Amino acid sequence: MTFSAFEAEIAKVNDILCAVNLLTWDSRTMMPPCGVEARAKQIATLTGLARDLATGEAMLRAIEDARRSDEPDPDGLRAKAVAEAARQIGILARIPAKLVAEATELKTNAQAAWVEARAENDFAGFAPWLERTLDLQRETAAAIGYTEHPYDALVSSYEPDMTWARLRPLYDALKAALLPLNEAARSLPPIRMDFLERAFPVDKQRAFAVTMARRMGYDFDRGRLDDTVHPFEISFTRADVRITGRFRETWLPVGLFSVWHEAGHGIYEQGVDPRFTRSIFAMDLINLYAVGGASFGLHESQSRLLENRVGRSRRFWELHFGELRAVFPDQLGDVSAHEFWRAVNAPRPSLVRVEADELTYDAHIILRSEIEAGLIAGEIRVADLPAIWAEKMKGYLGLDVPSDTLGVLQDVHWSSGMMGSFPTYTIGNIMGAQLYRAACADAAVAGGLDRGDYAPLTAWLGTHVHRHGRSLTPADILRAATGKPLAVDDYVAALRAKVTDLAA
Amino acid sequence: MTFSAFEAEIAKVNDILCAVNLLTWDSRTMMPPCGVEARAKQIATLTGLARDLATGEAMLRAIEDARRSDEPDPDGLRAKAVAEAARQIGILARIPAKLVAEATELKTNAQAAWVEARAENDFAGFAPWLERTLDLQRETAAAIGYTEHPYDALVSSYEPDMTWARLRPLYDALKAALLPLNEAARSLPPIRMDFLERAFPVDKQRAFAVTMARRMGYDFDRGRLDDTVHPFEISFTRADVRITGRFRETWLPVGLFSVWHEAGHGIYEQGVDPRFTRSIFAMDLINLYAVGGASFGLHESQSRLLENRVGRSRRFWELHFGELRAVFPDQLGDVSAHEFWRAVNAPRPSLVRVEADELTYDAHIILRSEIEAGLIAGEIRVADLPAIWAEKMKGYLGLDVPSDTLGVLQDVHWSSGMMGSFPTYTIGNIMGAQLYRAACADAAVAGGLDRGDYAPLTAWLGTHVHRHGRSLTPADILRAATGKPLAVDDYVAALRAKVTDLAA
Repeated sequence: MTFSAFEAEIAKVNDILCAVNLLTWDSRTMMPPCGVEARAKQIATLTGLARDLATGEAMLRAIEDARRSDEPDPDGLRAKAVAEAARQIGILARIPAKLVAEATELKTNAQAAWVEARAENDFAGFAPWLERTLDLQRETAAAIGYTEHPYDALVSSYEPDMTWARLRPLYDALKAALLPLNEAARSLPPIRMDFLERAFPVDKQRAFAVTMARRMGYDFDRGRLDDTVHPFEISFTRADVRITGRFRETWLPVGLFSVWHEAGHGIYEQGVDPRFTRSIFAMDLINLYAVGGASFGLHESQSRLLENRVGRSRRFWELHFGELRAVFPDQLGDVSAHEFWRAVNAPRPSLVRVEADELTYDAHIILRSEIEAGLIAGEIRVADLPAIWAEKMKGYLGLDVPSDTLGVLQDVHWSSGMMGSFPTYTIGNIMGAQLYRAACADAAVAGGLDRGDYAPLTAWLGTHVHRHGRSLTPADILRAATGKPLAVDDYVAALRAKVTDLAA
Repeated sequence: MTFSAFEAEIAKVNDILCAVNLLTWDSRTMMPPCGVEARAKQIATLTGLARDLATGEAMLRAIEDARRSDEPDPDGLRAKAVAEAARQIGILARIPAKLVAEATELKTNAQAAWVEARAENDFAGFAPWLERTLDLQRETAAAIGYTEHPYDALVSSYEPDMTWARLRPLYDALKAALLPLNEAARSLPPIRMDFLERAFPVDKQRAFAVTMARRMGYDFDRGRLDDTVHPFEISFTRADVRITGRFRETWLPVGLFSVWHEAGHGIYEQGVDPRFTRSIFAMDLINLYAVGGASFGLHESQSRLLENRVGRSRRFWELHFGELRAVFPDQLGDVSAHEFWRAVNAPRPSLVRVEADELTYDAHIILRSEIEAGLIAGEIRVADLPAIWAEKMKGYLGLDVPSDTLGVLQDVHWSSGMMGSFPTYTIGNIMGAQLYRAACADAAVAGGLDRGDYAPLTAWLGTHVHRHGRSLTPADILRAATGKPLAVDDYVAALRAKVTDLAA
């Protein structure tokens, strides 16, 4: 009876999911336009095979055999791997293949309908697709199982152990803190932003972003940066972790910060313990996705930490604005480091989530989470969505919603059947600030940040977060790293300090 | 009883092999340096899965069911697909998985040993690895089966129905024709080549190569060109067929002609009948490789045809040299179209196959084929290889071999276990000339070539070669397209005409 046979079976599934990731990466960066149709079939076949292998007889037998293994397991990780695989496969197997196939087919059609509805501001045209998506999401939630709220089943497939009951107090605390903060932000002294829209040649933007990403700890010998429409990070083992960016010549911040955001994700994947390569601790069998990060939320914490806590910090631009100005002497000759820092932190309440600043971003997430939970529970009707959206947008951000295109139709998530993933963005923001605060309590980290040496921070995160891969729950990682459970305090403190600084 | 279930099983295998092709393409164009080890495992896992599926119970059952199908099959292609799949799977299943695994492992080590031996001119260091490779190749040949010569089993896995007995008269005819032709070439008037070594910026080379490749018929909406060390073409269905090139700033021909060579391969793949997408007629189950071309030799015929018959023709440079000179006015200002054409056709007997010109290339192949056949049959001993190599090189090309590095150690093929593939290069040369001659008998094709319109040629090749995919044997395709079986006449005539032209 051996662990090895189990580990070999799992490694096969991991290899397939890494191949799926490459098929995905390629389709978003390199693939010629006509390749779409065949690529979708290749991804469907490989994902199906991974599912078949994971839930098949050979795997079940390998798990049973491994449970009776007498091979050495000094730190208990091998037995833990078996238990974790069994847990995930149990959930995966409870979602009927027929339901997965229906959802996949629906997604293709629902996305097409969404694209059209958004273009034509026609919520009624999308509503039937959303109804059908909700039906399948409810079926999925029922198949996965839950004790309190059906939303829990969906949320926890992205963020293990997270429930609506746990989210609500976090959201309430955030709302209570952010509403007055946004009030205060309205009376900040004017922030100059004109220079961000000057012409910044993209190749120079990219070179600067890359230089900084490398200093932040992203290893280009185990990665690369390519252009794409919607930036993302994706990995095929820790030895090959790729990031993508999108640069706009006349809007400097978007390219720089998206690269550092994705580099945060990438550094996480590159930092997973090499022992976990091709193991259950480097993949998500429930979502059939090769990934080393412990959860969507913890992953997002690493990108937000690098993008916002580090990249938007005052010290960062005190240290590096001179380098940026050396790259763009004409465009930034009349700008000070202080002005630049203020510009990339300017609060700008927006109707659109992806354009939101740090002070308002979470309001967008809270709004969506509340609606998702209500929809799944049957407490909110699809037909009422535009009205509910408008009401919440007015309440949280004081904005009037002029159209569904700029309101309820703005995100791709619902048409993709990704209900329950929105909360992980805010969880990431909270975790990111909490981890940053704990890291800064380390003198080496704080000293490094103060002189522009990011190696101590990366090392701290590597030790306390990255190396664990998926061998610990995000909650356990967070508690061990920060000494406390998930709480909004550090995040709120960081945002409050920022507003205070901006007012100074 | 249905064909559809069989076709779905085959489509899955095709999808996996297309994914393997992407893993391979990426590893040679995009992958960061540290990705090698994990990538090898991913490719091994997916190839193994394709093999398991192809030879597994479900496939066998699907084939049996399809044989009793009562679904419509007006042109008999569905029944033919079943028969062809059964044939290939029969061969695949006869090669024991253990032998495949051994060969894969040996390849890694033998290649490493070869790299070292080549660098140090140490044939004795490589000899044991070659012995072991030969053992496995003989085992493979025995597993595949043959009636006359063990080499037949290996050659026919690259070129269906090709045997040593069929190759020898072709080789004899070529030797008889090429030896005097090479003699004659020695007394050609001097050919000016100095200008090929000037500095040609690579991006401009690439742009010109791409412009011409597009005009030749390569569709960039279903393809792309990237840089690599050893250029190749690879496809993931006819909708996504990629080529690669390698440009040298101070040696103009290599970049241009390698792109057109690969474009010839690419146009073949892009021209396969769309009905064959994801079918047995768009993959090679014996080599577990997704490919639409009917054989290695027929594939090579398309690249050689475009590179040599078209791209090195006098008319081609009469038509296009002005465009090239417009791109490089400084570098080519003192060169005429005629001089340029002569330069890219200059006969240059070389010790190294990959640097050989058209007049001497086949001597390299014949030499290797004779040695391979002798080795496999046990008539040649590994220890005698350097001496035999030197003797043949002297006899065929009149060259003295100064070292094994420039002799028997120059190619990667033997360390990769690819014995039996060399003949397909010469088969490709012969087929290419034979098809070109037949195409030119079509007035539209000839007229097009005369005015630089390559669409009629591409259309002719599409109709007579490309669209068939692997639904016909290369021999049947060639006979139907040219009215005769494989014969060296047209190839020899083309080379003879070239020498005559160069002398004029």
